[in-house]
Order: sequence, then C-alpha cells, then structure tokens
Amino acid sequence: LRRGKPTCHKAFDEATALLVGDALQSLAFDMLANDPALTIESERRLRMVGVLAHAVGSCGMAGGQAIDIESVGQRLSPERLEDMHRRKTGELIHASVILGALAAETSDEAVLSALDQYGEAIGLAFQVVDDILDVTADTETLGKPQGSDQAQNKPTYPSILGLGAARTKAKELYQTALASLAPLGDNGKTLGEIADFIVHRNQ
Amino acid sequence: LRRGKPTCHKAFDEATALLVGDALQSLAFDMLANDPALTIESERRLRMVGVLAHAVGSCGMAGGQAIDIESVGQRLSPERLEDMHRRKTGELIHASVILGALAAETSDEAVLSALDQYGEAIGLAFQVVDDILDVTADTETLGKPQGSDQAQNKPTYPSILGLGAARTKAKELYQTALASLAPLGDNGKTLGEIADFIVHRNQ
Repeated sequence: LRRGKPTCHKAFDEATALLVGDALQSLAFDMLANDPALTIESERRLRMVGVLAHAVGSCGMAGGQAIDIESVGQRLSPERLEDMHRRKTGELIHASVILGALAAETSDEAVLSALDQYGEAIGLAFQVVDDILDVTADTETLGKPQGSDQAQNKPTYPSILGLGAARTKAKELYQTALASLAPLGDNGKTLGEIADFIVHRNQ
Repeated sequence: LRRGKPTCHKAFDEATALLVGDALQSLAFDMLANDPALTIESERRLRMVGVLAHAVGSCGMAGGQAIDIESVGQRLSPERLEDMHRRKTGELIHASVILGALAAETSDEAVLSALDQYGEAIGLAFQVVDDILDVTADTETLGKPQGSDQAQNKPTYPSILGLGAARTKAKELYQTALASLAPLGDNGKTLGEIADFIVHRNQ
C-alpha cells in the first residue's frame, strides 16, 4: 500500500513497475534536454541534468537502495544509517529543491547554497520521520503497512538510536532547514511550510 | 549465460543487477553533464543527453522491453515485431552511433543524417541476427542458452517470418547500412566493418 492504494508492483507486476520507473526517469532527462517549453539556456539545463543524474545514481537513490538491501538484518552504525538515508531519499528531495531554483534561473550562489543546506536537511528529515511513523502511526493513517520496516528487519532511526533520539534528530534537522532559509527572507516562507509539513506530518 | 559467463542477476541477484543497471545509466547522464574531460560545448552535450534519454525511455529500451513482456505467447504482426526490436535494441545501438558523431563534434548534418540511417539499420539488424542465432547456433558458440526465445515462447523474426525471410531481412538491412555510409567515403570504412560483423557473426 502507498497512500492507501496498492503499489504499482502489486496493481500490475514487478517487471511493469520497474519499466515504468525506468521510462519516467528517462522522460525527466528527455524533458531537460528536449522540452521546447523549457526556455532555460543550455549550460543551466546541463547543470540540471547533472544534479538529477547525481541524485538517482550510485551516490543517490540507486546506491542508497543497494545499502538498504545489504543492511537487512544488520546493525548499522548511525553514520552508515545516515549515509543510506541521505542517498536513498535525501538526495532526490535535495535535487528537487535545487532543480526548482535552477529552473527559476536563480544565479545568486548565496541563495543556491542556502537551498543546498535546506534541501539536505529536509531530505534527511523526511526519512527520519518516515522511520518514526513506521513505528508510531497506524496503517490506516499511514496509507502504507505500519511496522513494515520492523517486519523486514530493516535498520531505522528508532531501531538504531531509539525513538526519543530519532525525534530529537528530526527536530534538529527541522531547525537546520529553517535556519538555512534565513538569507531568503520572505521568499523562503513556502519552503519553511514544506519543512514544517515534512517534519510534523502524521502520514 | 552471456558471452559464456553467468549473467549479473545469476552471479549476484536480481535486485543487485537492476540497481547496477540504474547506477550505470545514471553515470552516463552524469558524465555527459559533469565530466571535465568532455570539452564539448553545452548545447551539443545537451543534445547528446536527449539522444540517450530517448534511446532508453518509453520510445526505446524500456518501451521495447514492455512490449517484449506483453508479447510472450502472442502472435505479433511483422510491423509490431519490428517496432519492438527497434525500441528494445535498435534505438540504443543507433544512439551509440549518433553519440559518437556528436562527441567527435561533427556538425555536418548530411553526415549525421547518413549515420542516422546507418544506426537504424544496424540496430535492427543486430536483433534480427540475434533471433536467427537463437535458432541456428549451439549454446557453446552462442555464449548464451540456445533456443531460449523459443523456450520462453517469444515472438521472433524466424517464428513470425520464417528462417529464410528473416535471413533476407538481415541481408537487406546490411545493404541499407552500407548504402547509408556512401556519403562518408573512406571515413565510413570501420563502420562498414562493424555492420559486417553484426550481420555475419555466429555468436
């Protein structure tokens, strides 16, 4: 279940779900390269391709997922757990923030650096909160099976640090995210609300 | 088996093989965007990203593989079979030819158009010959299990057109590939040899 509905690999089958993922990811690169509605200059579009490629490759999603598979039943150090979460989920959320800024033709490197820190913080916070909700929320609220990490014997923030320390970690990342937005002034308001949603959601 | 060795998903496992594929594909986009050794101008690099993205997405490899899965046990029309093969294998071989030309900073559109036709022809020819070898070669020569298409009840050129017509098709594509190279003169010699290898290989 995801958002209360069967996942793609259950509704169809695993091979189809994987191919749809491959096709959609290629479409993202295709649009960055070819979409005539994208009037951004080539050099910036190429930078966007680089950000996306980094976020989905071995330093990002694919690498994080590989650590995830390898970690089932293992006791990870907090550093290794953070590395896994940063890659598996954090990098793609981080990339979404940076790609938005690049698409808006931001060229103020101070703003990009602020968004870089903000993206890193909310990316990791998302996964810490996900780990916490897997323990504390019920399946109906969560929209996906509760306790599935535990059932699969996966290392998580609550299982490695304890629930209290995991909550403290989420709070710290939230504070970091908000502090990073300071240079943006009022322009950072919506991003602050997104951080708030990520950390305080109950599903 | 591939080239006489166990495939990645047998030597390791399916999840690992899939993630390695994802990571390597991302690395290709990453290198096009970020590799400092690539001194090609941004606009051309972005065009290369577009060629690669098209070749691996729904109009290429991922889409072809989806048709392949859906076609097991079906009787395809020759047109649908050709569409499947073009996407699944042809587009990526075609892209390799075009990417080479773009990387060499070819800006002669007549040359690019010649290579476009050549790439299309050898890309499809590769798969037609693959289908033929699956029927005619033994496993040891082939380096992968002989008769695996038939065993999996997959539509192929020999099963749809018959072996004789499949061989004629391969020969025609070979002739088309060679004819396409005419505008390149002596510069097309190695590409002619590659076409020769693709069509006359026995493994």
